[in-house]
Amino acid sequence: MFEEKISELSLSTPASFIRAILKTTENSEIISFAGGLPNPISFPKEEIKKSTNRVIDKYGSKVFQYSMTAGLRELREYIAEHLNNSQGMDVTPDEIIVTTGSQQALDLIGKVLINPGDSVVLEEPSYLGAIQAFSQYRPDMCAITLERDGMDMNKLEAKLKESNVKFIYTVPNFQNPSGLTYSKEKRETLHRLTRKYNCILVEDDPYGDLKFDGNPYGYISRNEFEGSILLGTFSKTVTPGMRSGFMVIRNPELRLRINTAKEAADLHSNVFSQYILWDYMTNNDVQKHILKIRELYRNQSNAMIKAMEDSFPESVSFTRPEGGMFIWVTLPEGMIALDLFEKARKENVVFVPGNPFYIDGRAANTMRLNYTNCDEKTIIEGINRLSRLL
Amino acid sequence: MFEEKISELSLSTPASFIRAILKTTENSEIISFAGGLPNPISFPKEEIKKSTNRVIDKYGSKVFQYSMTAGLRELREYIAEHLNNSQGMDVTPDEIIVTTGSQQALDLIGKVLINPGDSVVLEEPSYLGAIQAFSQYRPDMCAITLERDGMDMNKLEAKLKESNVKFIYTVPNFQNPSGLTYSKEKRETLHRLTRKYNCILVEDDPYGDLKFDGNPYGYISRNEFEGSILLGTFSKTVTPGMRSGFMVIRNPELRLRINTAKEAADLHSNVFSQYILWDYMTNNDVQKHILKIRELYRNQSNAMIKAMEDSFPESVSFTRPEGGMFIWVTLPEGMIALDLFEKARKENVVFVPGNPFYIDGRAANTMRLNYTNCDEKTIIEGINRLSRLL
Repeated sequence: MFEEKISELSLSTPASFIRAILKTTENSEIISFAGGLPNPISFPKEEIKKSTNRVIDKYGSKVFQYSMTAGLRELREYIAEHLNNSQGMDVTPDEIIVTTGSQQALDLIGKVLINPGDSVVLEEPSYLGAIQAFSQYRPDMCAITLERDGMDMNKLEAKLKESNVKFIYTVPNFQNPSGLTYSKEKRETLHRLTRKYNCILVEDDPYGDLKFDGNPYGYISRNEFEGSILLGTFSKTVTPGMRSGFMVIRNPELRLRINTAKEAADLHSNVFSQYILWDYMTNNDVQKHILKIRELYRNQSNAMIKAMEDSFPESVSFTRPEGGMFIWVTLPEGMIALDLFEKARKENVVFVPGNPFYIDGRAANTMRLNYTNCDEKTIIEGINRLSRLL
Repeated sequence: MFEEKISELSLSTPASFIRAILKTTENSEIISFAGGLPNPISFPKEEIKKSTNRVIDKYGSKVFQYSMTAGLRELREYIAEHLNNSQGMDVTPDEIIVTTGSQQALDLIGKVLINPGDSVVLEEPSYLGAIQAFSQYRPDMCAITLERDGMDMNKLEAKLKESNVKFIYTVPNFQNPSGLTYSKEKRETLHRLTRKYNCILVEDDPYGDLKFDGNPYGYISRNEFEGSILLGTFSKTVTPGMRSGFMVIRNPELRLRINTAKEAADLHSNVFSQYILWDYMTNNDVQKHILKIRELYRNQSNAMIKAMEDSFPESVSFTRPEGGMFIWVTLPEGMIALDLFEKARKENVVFVPGNPFYIDGRAANTMRLNYTNCDEKTIIEGINRLSRLL
């Protein structure tokens, strides 16, 4: 009865391979490098409890009532001030829209910008949640090879010359899935090319704060972002469970369109959680909290890299991230990561084969390993199991 | 630069008139009958505070971590049990998807079912959030006149005969905006027609629990809902700020499609709030809480009706709701509610003119009054100001 009722839009939406895997890995005996879960010891439980009690006492019914589509004013003020102080930007709260996680931002961008057949550019490999969200609106997606220091800029410019590209989607810092980071040169080239070819830059930065050493990188569109959309999130530094992200959009026409699409999507994001997050961030030393997460993840990343160096065959290569949550592994030519996945699952260790990170979903000799959600001992044990299979 | 980049989908999305009004009415001197806000004294503040502390202590990191797309298992079990006990249904938790408010459910339904040009049927007048969500996907919308006891079933059947209607959207109890309720006969006819013409019934029930007297009405698709989608929400009985609603979908193909669309839309709804809601509902006498809200709203509704009977000219008619949040007023033929709105705003009283509740947005002699968010004294004062203008 229903098959013939399903829309083209829905038929164009692939189910998430990762979320399907996650369901099968809830068994506690399995060592999972598959998800992108923050380490639970990084959640500020007691502080959030205090903030909840405080905002209910202080603001009463307001934290429970319907609220503005763009998001809680106080939270947007905090975000603007934080961006201005840390990145030398001059953002106003009015240029910020709070979203139900960054995933919603990706869906809204697809909705508001893509007509079927429009050209959009992503990285290869790219974040699968972005591939999924954009796919719905049936664009002509072009994936540009990600080199060690960012997209292949020659290929990118050739594409921009050839087609009228609506937007370029990039995760410049410790990319998901590759763990790679753009060099200063490639950031500048990317900025120059988006201006030259009049396209929108969608700069997604979920991991920027999780740089293992030194100050976070500056945004590509930091000082001049009329033609750009910046995405941020509290999922990796405070809690993903509250589904709180944000967009910075300077262009008023585009912002209004996104705001109206958000109205139609969920009226507004959970305002109870927005109050709590805002109170938590203004009453705690968030920087200190983030430094602790960075150190934790640096140690876990180092443990995984050391274990792979010690036990993986030389024909297997992998990235060495400067931050974030992922390592990208390339198996010898001709080996299929999906086959390894099937064998590894029997040994109670899982990861994500490369397929869902390519726009054509092809089976490949690549895979993504996450190191943030296991302790070092478990990481070493999991890598040893994988190396026995290799 | 941007105008030519906006998608057809976005260009088809009207901004919400109500949300635009609400921004201009945050001034506390204004008496607002415009929004659809629950009375803030109905929010169980202290109980929610207790539940928050309890779930953090009891479940720790789980309440902060990424979670399942369909929603927290425990909450879905609670919903299924509640529906089975109160409505004599046989729903399983697997047939429930938790959504970011009912607004998200409307967007997901539009996404998954509507191809441009597809026929869908709504009530006239209809809920503007549904008109907005469906409009995005460019259906051929047909609005069937709402009579005192439900849709005009002759017109509906004529439409169903003539076109291949994808779905019928209805709010059978204390409808928004009209306050009208379907009779038993029309419920049965609607059920029979959806089966006969093989179309999907989208039954939206945000207000069902807010019936002033006696037991809530049974769902139209209670016992046999293979071809139906049921929408529920905690916004009117617990808190709208947490944006928590749910869908009941028995057909597995349709459920999978909606679930995948939700994955792409926001991965999952706020799980911190889902834990709190579930804990609140299992540890408190929710029925007693709802009875208090019903009494409050019955008194407020009675106060508004009495004030209108006392002071409105006889040429003005209005509905007498059995529950819910709204009264629908019909001004004399030829009078335009939008003109009255402009005058009333100067007298510091606002309401929603009928326009956004019609699919063609036409100016009309109708308007929606909300009585849930003012006390009785304020309601009487507001109605008196309106009557002086009439």
